[in-house]
Amino acid sequence: MTEMFSDRQICIGVQQLIKSRAGCAHFQTVVESEPIQKPPPMAPRYAPSLRSRLGPLLLFLLSGFIISAFYFEIRDEAIPRDKYAEFQDVNVMVVLGFGFLCTFLVRHGFSSSGFNLFVATIATQWALILMGIESWYDKRRILVDLRSILVAEMSAASALISLGAVLGKVNPVQLILLALLEVPAFILNEWVLLSLLKVRPQNNIMLLHIFGAFFGLTLTWILHRKGSQQGFEKEKFDKKSGLFSMLGSLFLWMFWPTFNSVLVDDRFPERKLEAVCSTYLALAVSAVTAASVSVLSSARGKLNLIQMQSCILAGGVAVGASMTAVHQPWEAMAIGFTAAVLSTTGFKYLKSHMLLAFDCHDTAATLSTHGLPGLLGWFAHLILEIKNCDDHTVAIRFAVFHICTLLVTITISLTTGALTGFLLSLNFWRPPQNRKCFDDQAFWEVSGHPLSAEEVGIVYIHTTFYRRVILDKIVLCLICLQVLQQLKYPCLEAYFK
Amino acid sequence: MTEMFSDRQICIGVQQLIKSRAGCAHFQTVVESEPIQKPPPMAPRYAPSLRSRLGPLLLFLLSGFIISAFYFEIRDEAIPRDKYAEFQDVNVMVVLGFGFLCTFLVRHGFSSSGFNLFVATIATQWALILMGIESWYDKRRILVDLRSILVAEMSAASALISLGAVLGKVNPVQLILLALLEVPAFILNEWVLLSLLKVRPQNNIMLLHIFGAFFGLTLTWILHRKGSQQGFEKEKFDKKSGLFSMLGSLFLWMFWPTFNSVLVDDRFPERKLEAVCSTYLALAVSAVTAASVSVLSSARGKLNLIQMQSCILAGGVAVGASMTAVHQPWEAMAIGFTAAVLSTTGFKYLKSHMLLAFDCHDTAATLSTHGLPGLLGWFAHLILEIKNCDDHTVAIRFAVFHICTLLVTITISLTTGALTGFLLSLNFWRPPQNRKCFDDQAFWEVSGHPLSAEEVGIVYIHTTFYRRVILDKIVLCLICLQVLQQLKYPCLEAYFK
Amino acid sequence: MTEMFSDRQICIGVQQLIKSRAGCAHFQTVVESEPIQKPPPMAPRYAPSLRSRLGPLLLFLLSGFIISAFYFEIRDEAIPRDKYAEFQDVNVMVVLGFGFLCTFLVRHGFSSSGFNLFVATIATQWALILMGIESWYDKRRILVDLRSILVAEMSAASALISLGAVLGKVNPVQLILLALLEVPAFILNEWVLLSLLKVRPQNNIMLLHIFGAFFGLTLTWILHRKGSQQGFEKEKFDKKSGLFSMLGSLFLWMFWPTFNSVLVDDRFPERKLEAVCSTYLALAVSAVTAASVSVLSSARGKLNLIQMQSCILAGGVAVGASMTAVHQPWEAMAIGFTAAVLSTTGFKYLKSHMLLAFDCHDTAATLSTHGLPGLLGWFAHLILEIKNCDDHTVAIRFAVFHICTLLVTITISLTTGALTGFLLSLNFWRPPQNRKCFDDQAFWEVSGHPLSAEEVGIVYIHTTFYRRVILDKIVLCLICLQVLQQLKYPCLEAYFK
Repeated sequence: MTEMFSDRQICIGVQQLIKSRAGCAHFQTVVESEPIQKPPPMAPRYAPSLRSRLGPLLLFLLSGFIISAFYFEIRDEAIPRDKYAEFQDVNVMVVLGFGFLCTFLVRHGFSSSGFNLFVATIATQWALILMGIESWYDKRRILVDLRSILVAEMSAASALISLGAVLGKVNPVQLILLALLEVPAFILNEWVLLSLLKVRPQNNIMLLHIFGAFFGLTLTWILHRKGSQQGFEKEKFDKKSGLFSMLGSLFLWMFWPTFNSVLVDDRFPERKLEAVCSTYLALAVSAVTAASVSVLSSARGKLNLIQMQSCILAGGVAVGASMTAVHQPWEAMAIGFTAAVLSTTGFKYLKSHMLLAFDCHDTAATLSTHGLPGLLGWFAHLILEIKNCDDHTVAIRFAVFHICTLLVTITISLTTGALTGFLLSLNFWRPPQNRKCFDDQAFWEVSGHPLSAEEVGIVYIHTTFYRRVILDKIVLCLICLQVLQQLKYPCLEAYFK
Repeated sequence: MTEMFSDRQICIGVQQLIKSRAGCAHFQTVVESEPIQKPPPMAPRYAPSLRSRLGPLLLFLLSGFIISAFYFEIRDEAIPRDKYAEFQDVNVMVVLGFGFLCTFLVRHGFSSSGFNLFVATIATQWALILMGIESWYDKRRILVDLRSILVAEMSAASALISLGAVLGKVNPVQLILLALLEVPAFILNEWVLLSLLKVRPQNNIMLLHIFGAFFGLTLTWILHRKGSQQGFEKEKFDKKSGLFSMLGSLFLWMFWPTFNSVLVDDRFPERKLEAVCSTYLALAVSAVTAASVSVLSSARGKLNLIQMQSCILAGGVAVGASMTAVHQPWEAMAIGFTAAVLSTTGFKYLKSHMLLAFDCHDTAATLSTHGLPGLLGWFAHLILEIKNCDDHTVAIRFAVFHICTLLVTITISLTTGALTGFLLSLNFWRPPQNRKCFDDQAFWEVSGHPLSAEEVGIVYIHTTFYRRVILDKIVLCLICLQVLQQLKYPCLEAYFK
Repeated sequence: MTEMFSDRQICIGVQQLIKSRAGCAHFQTVVESEPIQKPPPMAPRYAPSLRSRLGPLLLFLLSGFIISAFYFEIRDEAIPRDKYAEFQDVNVMVVLGFGFLCTFLVRHGFSSSGFNLFVATIATQWALILMGIESWYDKRRILVDLRSILVAEMSAASALISLGAVLGKVNPVQLILLALLEVPAFILNEWVLLSLLKVRPQNNIMLLHIFGAFFGLTLTWILHRKGSQQGFEKEKFDKKSGLFSMLGSLFLWMFWPTFNSVLVDDRFPERKLEAVCSTYLALAVSAVTAASVSVLSSARGKLNLIQMQSCILAGGVAVGASMTAVHQPWEAMAIGFTAAVLSTTGFKYLKSHMLLAFDCHDTAATLSTHGLPGLLGWFAHLILEIKNCDDHTVAIRFAVFHICTLLVTITISLTTGALTGFLLSLNFWRPPQNRKCFDDQAFWEVSGHPLSAEEVGIVYIHTTFYRRVILDKIVLCLICLQVLQQLKYPCLEAYFK
């Protein structure tokens, strides 16, 4: 990470970069400036099999979840008014929105959407258990209702944000470990903020953007691979994959007002309307700003859809983080505007700087999508609260509080992110080789007949036997059943008389 | 179906299989072990035109629907609280979820989504009429409200499940006949269960999974084509089509809690929360289990997205079928786990066995997606009710009842499925040739300009004439209208004074 | 537009047409019947850059919106019961439905979905401001709530309909001007109808289909390009792009009942149920009719998915326009049937006639999708009201009223459409060349690495410097922050004691 280049090496590096980028077809993985005569050792052609890692890990987790579910109890109450539709909106955001946001990677669509689904489900169940520990300690019972599943899904969202930073460079086993370690860290952060600084739950959970972004960045920094600077061969988008991620992005955009308003206390329904309208206006401004900055910052005056997809969401993130202080529509719109400018510029310039200066390869631009707008929202919250505050001492007290909230969050996310990173960097987890990064083929059957040739061949021999010997028996059984049923009817009638 | 092979023939068959599968490009339709010298008779190059079948059939149906709608009456009441959002969720599942679930077939996307839409609409209208017959008999009026449309859509879902089994091998005319015959069969089944065995409506409708699966299987067994064993040339998936079906699958996954809870009696709102939470937990466990079994059962340790898409839904199906007896979260999760294991294993091994041993080609793995989890849910219901029952005689009575429910359902579905199969196997319906199976081109314009060349050519000559002769008249008319309007205003004012 | 062809020229034209259409690969842009020896002047290879137009325009708009937002105020009330879910449905229709409906164009997916998003957001904000002018005039305050955002989105939908007519042939700057001019025109129309003819708001807003369609048609007629008759090279669909637009179409289809019922007065909840059920039935009939007419009107008996996607919506449009008069299900179904027949026939024959006879190239068949069904709905409204009316004079009065409503709407839409057309036809806006029509490449980065080669090269040199010089400072800073935080904790405790 800290190795130095001589000037000549930089020149060569840049030349290689431009050459390899321009002609993607002839991508060269010559990373180090070794003499080219010596061929690199043959890399294995296939990605390592995960059969012995992923299967048992998942089965172990599942048995854990089911055993802990013995202590679950569904709360005995009606679904609160309107809550169910909101719950479904958040569900759509977490499962579909986040899942399809990263399908812009042209050979990584199965992984982006598939891994997102199972990381989300594991993280949600894990969060349900962890959040219930307190109540379990008191009453030996963990109450489950719509609200607790909702909060669990939102905590799971912090893991999905971090997942965006490392996506394509890790395998599903590592992603599951990420979920298993980040969710407790996030809940620990919530608990610390709640018990030490008395931060309100709604403000607390909105820190998920900052937490997730910094956790993910630390992680990807530690998991950095030699050769990332040259770009990965398969880290590309095309016109179809761009549309799939547009779909994910639009679902996030459309339902973000729900995400921000769903945890507003039901006793203040007018606050909920405020949250919905503010978020909507901020998002609308963000969408326009993202387009304008994108076209202004491009040398050829072209828009970049992938950039826009991340940045139209910035307003929602920023307003979410400053929700309790935003009361005027213009405040929301100004925050949305600033957030989108920050986010678009960040995507354009910061992403490559992060990669090249700090060895931090951020697949889905987590820093610009969630990190910067989250920080801006935090800052807007501070400014607005101080502005609205008449008393000087109260304002300072709030400022100190608010700054501590941020520092605690960042500290915990960086620390736990680093720990997770060291754990995930073990070779035991069989990470994919560089040339298998961003490639579905490492983990998925990506095409072909739903049934493969070998299986069918074996089955064919077996079943010709079946057909000869067993089919007659089955036909016989069916006839018997038929007869039995005929007989049963009178019995039944006799029985129920 | 029952022809026997000698050992030598089996060997040749297997060799051909492996050869033809491995090199998909040079797919050979040599099915029987005839000497290869004799070329097969030239098949017609195009699929038979459906103009004389599909158009009139649909128009006839439409006139029937509109005439019967003279007896419809919209109930004079307000939309019940929260019902509308739930109605929309089910609507999304039926139209979008089921429609896109089968788009994994690489050349069959238009058919999968398009035929699903019109089978769903026809089946829903047909179900509305059939369910209203009783009320029509009493009052000469069929009351329509949100609930009746909802139940009609759920009955239509049984036809969509069967459609999954035969998809790609039949033409739209056959699909419509399938809908027209299956919906009455399903409603008959409901009526029989309700009047003979007093099964509660909610349990009744959840048998749609079992009913649909067995109906579809019988159908595809009777419609079996020679050559299916070798696999169809175009029955393949790729990385884009897999993402489209992921979309359908995720919509089903996300809204399944609504599907299971929407018919719970509104007088027990806490039962509804139980249904939602149980289904959510079962689905979450299913998603993780499907991934784990998929990776464990693959020789190369790879996941199969198509397999996962079907199997993540197993938990929802199973909990739906056992809903009224599931009260503890761990029960739901255990059912979800077992259902997903069954479903994944079924998809992997049972699907090819069904094809090769029983000549039953099941396109969308209906048996593993709906049949097995439905049966498991039925079984779980039985076990849980017996467990919760203190009285011995009541338990036995329930068991007899419950077993009869299943037997009646399976008998009716197999019988009506067989009848439908014999009807659909007539050549009158012009089924597509083997080489046109799983191919949109048989029924759809799949690419090109929205306007085709011939039309434009003809129109061009017509319209040059128009332009010369008619345009002046139209301009004249427009001016006249303008003038007339000018004149009308004073008239109007005079009129309304 | 009115130039005449000799008979010989027509023959040549038709030959060229058929030749160029049939062999799309060798498309020839020989438009005028000039001698072929003389080569046309070399067109510039790239579309003109929009950097100096689009960016500043958007930023100017944004500052306007944010400044006017100083007068916004969020209404201090709770979200009305059930309203939020309906608001989200309309949101999904406007942002996702309309956005993806036009993605059938194979190289125009980014533009269809991306431009739709930012035209929708701009038009909505603009409509919010314009609709608030009256209240601003009275109270210097514009009240914002869910209903006002909803109505603003529906007004924005009129701009999205017109956008469908010109899509692919204009650049985003022109689209934004379209939105900025059409929204005031539509609101003016509403205001005229409300104040002059006392048309109820709900009927008023449903004229958006007629208004949008005629506005769009005038626009595309004035913006007509030489060479459109031969068809644009890239105006094609294929099997993947057809599925994307299927998605948009299905979302519109599923949520159309909400679109029609959302503005029904909450004091008459049974009217809302009527609106939902009528729209649902009309849509169901439309879907079946569209398939049947599509197959009957095709020479080879094939369905056309693009045609069906537009025409399954016709029932919703027509019933929406006649909503207040439709009380019987059969009326809704008959309207749905007629609308779909009109729409399908219009798509097949009228679209090419419009192009060739009237030089009016209608990309998304706005006339058949919205115009004709809207007019039919208007006509059905007239007939039904007269039928239901006992008093003769009242009936005539209503008829005069109703006809005036239509004439006013069409007059305003044609006039403002023509004005907008003349403004947009200025070369100042840099419209794309003919060969760049229907091509994302004119405005978007359509593929490649998320980071481009040049940027990375420059950044690379910069950042190697950073790494040497700045990294140490940052590490130092982080350590300092850590230390400071350690120190702050005691301070805090002291402070809050």
